[in-house]
Amino acid sequence: MKYLDLPTFCIRGSGLVDLEEHTTNLGDDLRKKELKDSLEKDRELIADLQVRLYAEGKHSLLLLFQAMDAAGKDSCIRHVMSGVNPQGCHVTSFKAPSSEELAHDYLWRHAKAIPARGMIGIHNRSHYEEVLVVKVHPEYLAGQRIPSLDPNHLSEGFWEDRYRSIREFEGHLARQGVTIMKFFLHMGKEAQKERFLERIDDPKKQWKFSTADVKERGHWEAYQRAYSEAIGATAAPHAPWFIVPADDQWESRAIVGRLVREQLESMDPQMPTLSDKELEGLKLGKQQLEKE
Amino acid sequence: MKYLDLPTFCIRGSGLVDLEEHTTNLGDDLRKKELKDSLEKDRELIADLQVRLYAEGKHSLLLLFQAMDAAGKDSCIRHVMSGVNPQGCHVTSFKAPSSEELAHDYLWRHAKAIPARGMIGIHNRSHYEEVLVVKVHPEYLAGQRIPSLDPNHLSEGFWEDRYRSIREFEGHLARQGVTIMKFFLHMGKEAQKERFLERIDDPKKQWKFSTADVKERGHWEAYQRAYSEAIGATAAPHAPWFIVPADDQWESRAIVGRLVREQLESMDPQMPTLSDKELEGLKLGKQQLEKE
Repeated sequence: MKYLDLPTFCIRGSGLVDLEEHTTNLGDDLRKKELKDSLEKDRELIADLQVRLYAEGKHSLLLLFQAMDAAGKDSCIRHVMSGVNPQGCHVTSFKAPSSEELAHDYLWRHAKAIPARGMIGIHNRSHYEEVLVVKVHPEYLAGQRIPSLDPNHLSEGFWEDRYRSIREFEGHLARQGVTIMKFFLHMGKEAQKERFLERIDDPKKQWKFSTADVKERGHWEAYQRAYSEAIGATAAPHAPWFIVPADDQWESRAIVGRLVREQLESMDPQMPTLSDKELEGLKLGKQQLEKE
Repeated sequence: MKYLDLPTFCIRGSGLVDLEEHTTNLGDDLRKKELKDSLEKDRELIADLQVRLYAEGKHSLLLLFQAMDAAGKDSCIRHVMSGVNPQGCHVTSFKAPSSEELAHDYLWRHAKAIPARGMIGIHNRSHYEEVLVVKVHPEYLAGQRIPSLDPNHLSEGFWEDRYRSIREFEGHLARQGVTIMKFFLHMGKEAQKERFLERIDDPKKQWKFSTADVKERGHWEAYQRAYSEAIGATAAPHAPWFIVPADDQWESRAIVGRLVREQLESMDPQMPTLSDKELEGLKLGKQQLEKE
């Protein structure tokens, strides 16, 4: 997949991010078959690397997926991760919070879902919704019952405090051996319209469409601003954002597959080796079995 | 896979079960390539059926795996379920209980891991350990801090009470739409010895072997009795046990794959259909998008 210049998708430092400077479409140079072949190979390598990650049991890998509706998060997860042993990979889909979740601080439910050592954890939506959908709809804050907070008059530093909490949360995780990759599937407004119309017209996809989706589309610009700010405020060397062109779903799947594969390769997980004492134990075990 | 007479593996009614009457090996008639091809086809069908199960969002499927050490539970799960979208499939591996888990009733941690509607849940070991390893080692009961219980002098009905709790727990789940399949990977004692020696001799597998495994093997007959009793006491039409020959791992994988595929086919999950009101909503959405 020589056309893919992976580093251009990656934001590793905090600072201003203008999504308009990032393409949503790499164009026709990349043909579907080529993308599918690339993904197929990467998927196999990811499956092999996951076996070693699990056996090693030291590091874990957290993949966060964020995107506008219909950008293809679900299908991207399915295409990249099917093939991996489900015993070593746990997907959590975050929907509207339950009353128990709302009764806790907003990172609580996300912290509970952090992958254990040796595991790949996938968050389909994530704690970033707290600075995305909640920022576009500050009225949702009322449900969070935060002491002395008036959603209609947020203090000047309110969102900056949230970015800070998120940065510190991710910094802690990274220090504990969690490798974090944050994917924004970057789709253009016209592409979303096409996807919605496709869902409406295809009887097999109609159940995925909700009229609320069109209403939410009305806030497109506010969401793009919230994404730009959140990405700029939280990208870090240990918690990079990847802005993945997503007008073409095979493009985004192939790119995510390649990025995940390269990350796992650079982590280079090793099968466990035994200490001298443990090797001695093996010998004893063998003797016992053989004299049965 | 014409050789496999699936119904013979299935125990649907309570009563005495003698594991010695169940083969651990179907023999050479089934060749490895045939078994692999069969599993490959079933795995693809399972992946397709899971998509419908998830979209329908009504039923869930719980697959429990129990077996003696080294019978191949992990690799069976990997071979049968890799290919399924990890977003719809959640594996829980139950190891020695934590102190928080021990502070609760023994079904607590298992009930928490029951799959949500639309999901496939896989329990690698399960609440059956409470009538298997705990029965062979009643001293573990001390850690459970059950009021007025003396592990050295268990009341006559103690294990019968546990079987009853399990039966009632599973009956409740079944009434709520959880389809339950319980797999015992049935491996002979000689086959376990070979697997252990293989692990000891293969540097890539040595980390899987623990000298405690050989010690536990000393309780082989007690475990076989505990399995016979547990299976006989808890098999039911809505919660059948499958005693799967497991001397040959390709045999057990192919059989489990076929059984899971047939179960999902008989559940026949359907993609959601829309009400007239919802279809009306689609039309409105389309109009709105088109006049943008």
